[in-house]
Amino acid sequence: MTAMVWGWVTDFFTYETTKSVVVKSWSVGIINRIVQVFIIAYFVGWVFIHEKAYQVFDTGIESSVMTKVKGFGYHQNHLMDVADYVFPQQGAAVFCIMTKLIITENQFQGKCGENGEKYSCKTDDDCEQHIGSILTNGRITGLCLHGGNESEGQCEVEGWCPVENDTIVIEPMFDAENFTIFIKNSIRFPLFNITRGNFPSSMTSEEIKKCKYNPETNPFCPIFRVGDILKYTGQNVAGLATKGGEIGINIEWKCNLDLDIEYCVPKYSFTRLDAPFAKNAVSKGFNFRFAKYFKMQNGTEYRTLHKAFAIRFDVMVTGKAGKFDTIPTLINLVAAFTSIGLGTVLCDIILLNFLKGAEQYKAKKFEEVSEAQIEAQIEAQIEAQIDASLAPSPSSQMSIKEVMKSSCDSGAHSLATADQPV
Amino acid sequence: MTAMVWGWVTDFFTYETTKSVVVKSWSVGIINRIVQVFIIAYFVGWVFIHEKAYQVFDTGIESSVMTKVKGFGYHQNHLMDVADYVFPQQGAAVFCIMTKLIITENQFQGKCGENGEKYSCKTDDDCEQHIGSILTNGRITGLCLHGGNESEGQCEVEGWCPVENDTIVIEPMFDAENFTIFIKNSIRFPLFNITRGNFPSSMTSEEIKKCKYNPETNPFCPIFRVGDILKYTGQNVAGLATKGGEIGINIEWKCNLDLDIEYCVPKYSFTRLDAPFAKNAVSKGFNFRFAKYFKMQNGTEYRTLHKAFAIRFDVMVTGKAGKFDTIPTLINLVAAFTSIGLGTVLCDIILLNFLKGAEQYKAKKFEEVSEAQIEAQIEAQIEAQIDASLAPSPSSQMSIKEVMKSSCDSGAHSLATADQPV
Amino acid sequence: MTAMVWGWVTDFFTYETTKSVVVKSWSVGIINRIVQVFIIAYFVGWVFIHEKAYQVFDTGIESSVMTKVKGFGYHQNHLMDVADYVFPQQGAAVFCIMTKLIITENQFQGKCGENGEKYSCKTDDDCEQHIGSILTNGRITGLCLHGGNESEGQCEVEGWCPVENDTIVIEPMFDAENFTIFIKNSIRFPLFNITRGNFPSSMTSEEIKKCKYNPETNPFCPIFRVGDILKYTGQNVAGLATKGGEIGINIEWKCNLDLDIEYCVPKYSFTRLDAPFAKNAVSKGFNFRFAKYFKMQNGTEYRTLHKAFAIRFDVMVTGKAGKFDTIPTLINLVAAFTSIGLGTVLCDIILLNFLKGAEQYKAKKFEEVSEAQIEAQIEAQIEAQIDASLAPSPSSQMSIKEVMKSSCDSGAHSLATADQPV
Repeated sequence: MTAMVWGWVTDFFTYETTKSVVVKSWSVGIINRIVQVFIIAYFVGWVFIHEKAYQVFDTGIESSVMTKVKGFGYHQNHLMDVADYVFPQQGAAVFCIMTKLIITENQFQGKCGENGEKYSCKTDDDCEQHIGSILTNGRITGLCLHGGNESEGQCEVEGWCPVENDTIVIEPMFDAENFTIFIKNSIRFPLFNITRGNFPSSMTSEEIKKCKYNPETNPFCPIFRVGDILKYTGQNVAGLATKGGEIGINIEWKCNLDLDIEYCVPKYSFTRLDAPFAKNAVSKGFNFRFAKYFKMQNGTEYRTLHKAFAIRFDVMVTGKAGKFDTIPTLINLVAAFTSIGLGTVLCDIILLNFLKGAEQYKAKKFEEVSEAQIEAQIEAQIEAQIDASLAPSPSSQMSIKEVMKSSCDSGAHSLATADQPV
Repeated sequence: MTAMVWGWVTDFFTYETTKSVVVKSWSVGIINRIVQVFIIAYFVGWVFIHEKAYQVFDTGIESSVMTKVKGFGYHQNHLMDVADYVFPQQGAAVFCIMTKLIITENQFQGKCGENGEKYSCKTDDDCEQHIGSILTNGRITGLCLHGGNESEGQCEVEGWCPVENDTIVIEPMFDAENFTIFIKNSIRFPLFNITRGNFPSSMTSEEIKKCKYNPETNPFCPIFRVGDILKYTGQNVAGLATKGGEIGINIEWKCNLDLDIEYCVPKYSFTRLDAPFAKNAVSKGFNFRFAKYFKMQNGTEYRTLHKAFAIRFDVMVTGKAGKFDTIPTLINLVAAFTSIGLGTVLCDIILLNFLKGAEQYKAKKFEEVSEAQIEAQIEAQIEAQIDASLAPSPSSQMSIKEVMKSSCDSGAHSLATADQPV
Repeated sequence: MTAMVWGWVTDFFTYETTKSVVVKSWSVGIINRIVQVFIIAYFVGWVFIHEKAYQVFDTGIESSVMTKVKGFGYHQNHLMDVADYVFPQQGAAVFCIMTKLIITENQFQGKCGENGEKYSCKTDDDCEQHIGSILTNGRITGLCLHGGNESEGQCEVEGWCPVENDTIVIEPMFDAENFTIFIKNSIRFPLFNITRGNFPSSMTSEEIKKCKYNPETNPFCPIFRVGDILKYTGQNVAGLATKGGEIGINIEWKCNLDLDIEYCVPKYSFTRLDAPFAKNAVSKGFNFRFAKYFKMQNGTEYRTLHKAFAIRFDVMVTGKAGKFDTIPTLINLVAAFTSIGLGTVLCDIILLNFLKGAEQYKAKKFEEVSEAQIEAQIEAQIEAQIDASLAPSPSSQMSIKEVMKSSCDSGAHSLATADQPV
């Protein structure tokens, strides 16, 4: 029993390594090393240095954006300040700067004629076709309203009257160009618990108040001039202020946390968000409607409707942080090592097929064993065993042992022994 | 010196390949190939074709959503338009369509009786228990207000008076069913710098204005009828309009950028967002309060409080784009090749344990070398060296060389030589 | 032809396994097993159990947040309720609780003197330097306004008059401490199509109404006291209520979907979002301006400007769900197995360099074959073939066969045969 355990322990603490054939050939040797150098260069240069495969990445960024617009603009003889032209007012990541307002004052609930040639009519029949339309300023009743004795009238709508006339031409607030946007962005990479702000802590309050963002000279200043932003996106203020538009301000955090945290800085870029829709002639620009509500002394509610053409800014934050981690490192290292090994596949093909003496190399590399051989060997062994059991002389026992032993040593040798005794 | 360098160079440009045993056996040969076919099929079919393991993926989508609602609805003898019932008005990704308003007009700061049976009282003691409650319409003062000589009164609250009575039954605005929502969504995959819009650029302005989204017949139309959306989520308008609710509009971008970019299209789906809370009897529906502020001629501010029951729409955009990349391809290819190699583990087990002639196969595969053998060999070598140094005859030097040489060639052979000279 | 196909089939269904050297040495055997145990322990313990490398992860969470604030607060003799102090009112994920309002009533469009010592002047020249400033309350006209005969005046601004004086000291609404925030968060992992809500479905309506969130005693209660949140972030109400601030409420979903879905629960944490900017003395706190618009009976519009200091809450949801998947499991398993194999690299170095008998082990492991040997062998073969063709006796044919055969068996042996016939 103890002997068995001991044998098992002895068997366990062995070390198994592959038997290799070392080919001392210049041609295949050089090919081998060149292939290995290429593989190593690829892994070191591209996978590890360029793609940083030794890092684990966090893309699930937590971000908070606060914005503040400053500036004054004239619009229809009014001087508008932030409380007038920014919507929503609380400084959100998505905000609009209104640049043109079509104002329809003193609207009361009631019935009146719709605007526009499309809704001109002679009889009620002309209007009935519009019933149910949602492109009007109110619900079409189906009646045709005639002012006085005129034959030409306008279809009647029910709703807030008088209806809006949004075809009038209004000078937009071009001053918007000089407005400034202050962006405060604080982010966190939850995986690494790293928190960063979008301007360096070394910047003083004075510096921040005075600076203007410029991609070359002042890339970390958090104050952006609207005109500059539009310029970066290739837009002109005149077009955007008139029709409205959507501008994306991308803040990109690409951080290598293996370096000093101070290198983890934002990168700003600016895009026109409605660019994918440029080819469609639909819904150009950006506008929305809102109303201010007032009350008559008698309690009747009325409103002022605003159709606001605005430049909408979307501050979008994306981030990716990488930090050394053992798991991707290990997996990629293993992949690298194994890939080096795969180089032998190529070399084997060359060695065993195209090189002079390929047959000889094959003979060196492969050791063949067929079922027939094994069976012959088994038979020989059994015979020897029978001989041994019939004539238990010390010499014959020796021979069995020898056969057994040599079969453990090297099959090639033992087979040769079995076939043709030396 | 030059010889040494030359030797080093010669040693370097060698090629090392494993020595293999080729087993010509039908049984294990067939098993081997079947296992390999399975492994290859798995990698080709599942890992590479189905899971696209040759691609690198970008899930950090940048998205901008603009919405616009259209339609008219009657509510309490008012015809409401977009400026009245959509909140916030600027066309955000999260917006509410108010379907029922409980309006409390002409609230002034002051003191008055709270609403509801819970706050009916006979003495001040009845009210003191409510002090500090935040479920009331104002701050409980602890007094009991008796109207005239009645014994039954209501607890007094301080705040905006008169207080809201939200138990009254109001017909909701069922017209909301026919409202339409226009969604403009532009996305960008920052990793690949790909920008896409949610309707194809081949769609004309006319087509877009007329179409209605339908998952089968019109899956790319960006205009959604509210009633349809509710139907897709299995809700009815009546319920949602009365109590409010939250609806998620998911836009899913799943793009294979190895194909033409035109195949990178959105997929819409609709869910009821408060579904996980269906089992709790709490906070069913969706409502919020807002106020419109007015001023008396004498400057006193008063307000109209609105408790708005609304259908909230959350446009949520998720995306994943994949594109061929060498790193995942390589790592997965290496994994695939290595996995094929792992098939030999199974075959080895069969070959070396369950096959007829397993012992013989073992003998072929494994070459044993024990410390005892090595030591014996070393001793033999040392002896030979001593012999050689004692009697420096050409023949004995030859024999050392031979021993050295054969020991370099094949251990099996050299050992055999050492044990029993041929 | 059939024979060729048969031969090809026979060759195909073979099994190739590496020939191994089994070293029966205690030292290297023990090292081998220890290295293997370490590698296995690393993979099982760290890669598989701790890092869950057998799972596929979804971080592209879809989230919808609804909030509702409750509570009453006194501010400047007004009792403010939710409709007064929460902005925006619809219960968004980012909302502000106003804690201090600087109210400037009855502003009309016009011209008036700017506030503050900085804008005091004696002549128009003093004011011209301020032209174009965006830090004022209106557009500087460049004139110096003198009240009566005073020599000291204020620069004139154009805009809403009278201008705001935000230097006055106002008691903030400390009651904000006792407000409660109800957060309803429903998430979805699109990859697994799993939907979860932030409070367990077993919680009754009564329980939810009464509970208060506490990280230890009540971690799943969705109702948060503002004072508690501020305490968790290490802030005091007094500071935040006076200057405003930004608080992040992080809801983290870390779900192991291999376990029961009930273990997929949210974890709340609270941070001060402007912490990264603590070192800069700029833009401390959080404030924004908004206006309420009124109309005179004659139709003139005027407004009340509010500078609101507010505590802004950002509910940020992050999530990561993992579920067993064959691809990462397989790739990591292969990596694990291959890594175990890499242990032999270390053992080989020890065995072939530092162990007693290293040269002998080398001899066992490596079989050398040089171009010279191969060439010699080819020549011998050709000679034999020529001999055979010249004298086609059965015995010589036998010898060729033998050479061919043994060269297929074991190169070492055959070479020995070729060099020095036994």
